[in-house]
Amino acid sequence: MAALTINVSTVNPLGDRVFVKISPSEEKTAGGILLPDTAKEKPQVGEVVAVGPGKVDNNGNRTPLEVKVGDKVLYSKYAGTDIKLGGEDYVLLSEKDILASISE
Amino acid sequence: MAALTINVSTVNPLGDRVFVKISPSEEKTAGGILLPDTAKEKPQVGEVVAVGPGKVDNNGNRTPLEVKVGDKVLYSKYAGTDIKLGGEDYVLLSEKDILASISE
Amino acid sequence: MAALTINVSTVNPLGDRVFVKISPSEEKTAGGILLPDTAKEKPQVGEVVAVGPGKVDNNGNRTPLEVKVGDKVLYSKYAGTDIKLGGEDYVLLSEKDILASISE
Amino acid sequence: MAALTINVSTVNPLGDRVFVKISPSEEKTAGGILLPDTAKEKPQVGEVVAVGPGKVDNNGNRTPLEVKVGDKVLYSKYAGTDIKLGGEDYVLLSEKDILASISE
Amino acid sequence: MAALTINVSTVNPLGDRVFVKISPSEEKTAGGILLPDTAKEKPQVGEVVAVGPGKVDNNGNRTPLEVKVGDKVLYSKYAGTDIKLGGEDYVLLSEKDILASISE
Amino acid sequence: MAALTINVSTVNPLGDRVFVKISPSEEKTAGGILLPDTAKEKPQVGEVVAVGPGKVDNNGNRTPLEVKVGDKVLYSKYAGTDIKLGGEDYVLLSEKDILASISE
Amino acid sequence: MAALTINVSTVNPLGDRVFVKISPSEEKTAGGILLPDTAKEKPQVGEVVAVGPGKVDNNGNRTPLEVKVGDKVLYSKYAGTDIKLGGEDYVLLSEKDILASISE
Repeated sequence: MAALTINVSTVNPLGDRVFVKISPSEEKTAGGILLPDTAKEKPQVGEVVAVGPGKVDNNGNRTPLEVKVGDKVLYSKYAGTDIKLGGEDYVLLSEKDILASISE
Repeated sequence: MAALTINVSTVNPLGDRVFVKISPSEEKTAGGILLPDTAKEKPQVGEVVAVGPGKVDNNGNRTPLEVKVGDKVLYSKYAGTDIKLGGEDYVLLSEKDILASISE
Repeated sequence: MAALTINVSTVNPLGDRVFVKISPSEEKTAGGILLPDTAKEKPQVGEVVAVGPGKVDNNGNRTPLEVKVGDKVLYSKYAGTDIKLGGEDYVLLSEKDILASISE
Repeated sequence: MAALTINVSTVNPLGDRVFVKISPSEEKTAGGILLPDTAKEKPQVGEVVAVGPGKVDNNGNRTPLEVKVGDKVLYSKYAGTDIKLGGEDYVLLSEKDILASISE
Repeated sequence: MAALTINVSTVNPLGDRVFVKISPSEEKTAGGILLPDTAKEKPQVGEVVAVGPGKVDNNGNRTPLEVKVGDKVLYSKYAGTDIKLGGEDYVLLSEKDILASISE
Repeated sequence: MAALTINVSTVNPLGDRVFVKISPSEEKTAGGILLPDTAKEKPQVGEVVAVGPGKVDNNGNRTPLEVKVGDKVLYSKYAGTDIKLGGEDYVLLSEKDILASISE
Repeated sequence: MAALTINVSTVNPLGDRVFVKISPSEEKTAGGILLPDTAKEKPQVGEVVAVGPGKVDNNGNRTPLEVKVGDKVLYSKYAGTDIKLGGEDYVLLSEKDILASISE
């Protein structure tokens, strides 16, 4: 197998998986998000860079994902698989681990 | 990615998730709720500020949520993901963790 | 959010949940119930004060609940979420945690 | 709520639940049952005194129970919820915890 | 309840349950079965004496069992509920715990 | 019950079970398989000697198995129930524990 | 059973399983993947060499796999069953353990 070059644009998530660029936690805005320091699960912020084709339902059809490339999302920070690519942090998530999208 | 401003009105829950503003626990009314001090799970009170489009069923249709924006709800205080936004406390819940709505 | 007044009549259970007024455990009748003192799960007695619309099935229809307002019920005392309201004890249960109704 | 009188005839099991009068364990017959003293689960003998209407299937229909009032049954002694009523021992079981009926 | 006489012929398994007479473990034949002495699960040999009507599927129909009365079967020795009846050992099993039938 | 003779040809697996003759682990070929010595699960090699009729699906039909008698298979060595028959080692497996077949 | 020769081309995965040649972890490219040293699950890179026919759905049809022979894939390094064949490392995975494919 020849050397394999992986770039962000070459990652194609499978099924209901979503490829997300993780926003740095120090990113804070004027009216922005502040995560309370409790024992409860805290969300992480990121931007969708690629989405899978969706899961196959019982009739053999795929259910398209709710999120699309470019969406900002809140997700569970304990979910998914982290990948570092070109010095940036990414995560591969199942859509069920995404809590909400953030409109602009 | 440019700085991301998150306001309450920009949070769009996914699937069967519900975005709820948590009522302060010191809020007590004349005939109001009192949570017994037992080992059993106790409910929390809040107000729905945004709802998801519902879960996709086996036939590919979405089941709309029972709760709507403005509903007061009782939910399990151990459920969901807490978020602090503009100094206020919010929680992102699955609708199955909401026990009842409170009519006025 | 204005002060929220919660009365028994304002609690609307969601899905297959049932709102039950707990009967005091000292209530004993001539031919009445006696719970054996064993390690096994013991039932609790209560009266239904409100019911949810039922769960949504795979075809998108709701299955109405078997119990209705006014029914006396036996339920697992370890189930559900306790609420004290106006000095009385209530519990929010899933119908699956109700074992039997008591006819008069 | 007025005093609640519970008699055997007033207990109506919900769903697939079965109300069973427990046979005393000292009841032994000539050719009768003897439970081996091993670490494995042992069955208990009882008589059905009331049955629920059955579980709702995916199409919204109820599946009637296999057992009926008067049936003698073998069930897992670790299953269900015990109730003492008028000095007698009863148990509320899901039908899936009944192993066999005994014909006469 | 009058004294209950339980004989082998009066036991009617429910659902997908199978009533099996356990073959003594010392029964060994010329070309017969030998269970290796390892930490892995070992099968037990027995003969079917009664079968249930089968489980109800999603459409409300019963799926008949694969085994029938008289079949010799191999089953997981850790499965089911043992019963001693008239000095003989029996077991009540779910059909899914039967691994294979033995033809003659 | 008369003495029961069990031979390989008399074992009929139920449902989705597969009866497999285990290949000795010292069997190694020129270009053959070598199992790495790691903490991860390792496959075992065997030959299918009998297959069940398949599992019953939701519509009451049986799904035939993918493997057939004579197939060489790789399976999880921690799966199934071992049987020694006529001095040889066999295993009864669910088809889902078979990873791959080996064509010749 | 005659000696069994297993080559890469003779391995036929069952169901939704995928046979993957593991890329050596020292393989790093200019703009390539770097796995962060955290406690979270890290992906592994490999190339698909064979795929199963897919899982059977509720209607008895097979759902074809999303990946095909020749695809580069990211998968969970804790998933699947490792095999060494002709001095090379392979893994047999369920498709659900594959996170993404890498296009060139």
